[in-house]
Amino acid sequence: MAPPRLYLAGPEVFLPDAAAVGAAKVALCVKHGFEGLFPLDAALDLSGLAKPAQARRISEANEGLMRSCAGLIANLTPFRGVSADSGTAFEVGFMRALGRPVFGYSNVLAGYVERSRAYRAEHRTQPDADAADVAIEDFDGAENLMIEQAIAAFGGRIERAAAARGHAMRDLAGFEASLLQARRHFRL
Amino acid sequence: MAPPRLYLAGPEVFLPDAAAVGAAKVALCVKHGFEGLFPLDAALDLSGLAKPAQARRISEANEGLMRSCAGLIANLTPFRGVSADSGTAFEVGFMRALGRPVFGYSNVLAGYVERSRAYRAEHRTQPDADAADVAIEDFDGAENLMIEQAIAAFGGRIERAAAARGHAMRDLAGFEASLLQARRHFRL
Repeated sequence: MAPPRLYLAGPEVFLPDAAAVGAAKVALCVKHGFEGLFPLDAALDLSGLAKPAQARRISEANEGLMRSCAGLIANLTPFRGVSADSGTAFEVGFMRALGRPVFGYSNVLAGYVERSRAYRAEHRTQPDADAADVAIEDFDGAENLMIEQAIAAFGGRIERAAAARGHAMRDLAGFEASLLQARRHFRL
Repeated sequence: MAPPRLYLAGPEVFLPDAAAVGAAKVALCVKHGFEGLFPLDAALDLSGLAKPAQARRISEANEGLMRSCAGLIANLTPFRGVSADSGTAFEVGFMRALGRPVFGYSNVLAGYVERSRAYRAEHRTQPDADAADVAIEDFDGAENLMIEQAIAAFGGRIERAAAARGHAMRDLAGFEASLLQARRHFRL
């Protein structure tokens, strides 16, 4: 039987060594009985296309990849703010709506409340979207409850561990722990 | 014919006056021929439930609401970082996977590249997830391309305008502009 396909969501596609990080993730997938699909795999030819057309092509390719997969593992490590990369959050929602199991990990140990408080303390002088009277959702989780519960719905939980300094985008311990959750789900 | 139902996604659910902001959005929906569903509408009884059970109940209610809606309008105003609220991003992906039209707006004028650069300049001393060699996606958009293109797929675009200082979470001009996009889509 062909190994179940997993879509590997996360902001490491923006790393200069994205292909190498993706290859390492794909290799761990094979080790655990899965076929891993890292978005760069699409290997699109974007030459000659204007920016909006490039973006459309990438979006269509990634949505197609997701639809071809049996599940998803998301790197939910905070990216440019308190929360996960917004594209990754989108993709978790996408697969959840399709009823496919989603798993996730974060290479930052602190939970959502702690991270939000730290962010707010740092941005005291800034106005607007995160004023002092805006509630900080507190369900003891690592992320917004919609993401947390999408993962819990399949018996999983967000794997959290502190990566060594400088390794938050590349450490794969949480990824492998998520693969173990996926193995249980798929009975591999 | 019953008016099409729109799910109203956004971080204003965390405001102290969330119910009032939601009511204002719902009223604008009615004005433009829609029924607006603001997540608080679920009016859930969470008494006596532990935090994880509360989170599960809210998640199930919101997912059910989304499935009952013909489309979604997202408040994509940056929230606790460069990008939109992660729960909102999840919900945009959720509705996109269901093939339903999604619209969105941001009350911050600056695009994704400009916001990312500003964030990076502010966090120069922090290590990890946003090191200097991490690419800043540049497709001239307001958000990660998966979100931007999910909206473009239905002929829409993220409405962007600068809200007055202190009003980034409550200004509804971009919301009403999104409603006009939705009207065109639904031919109302």
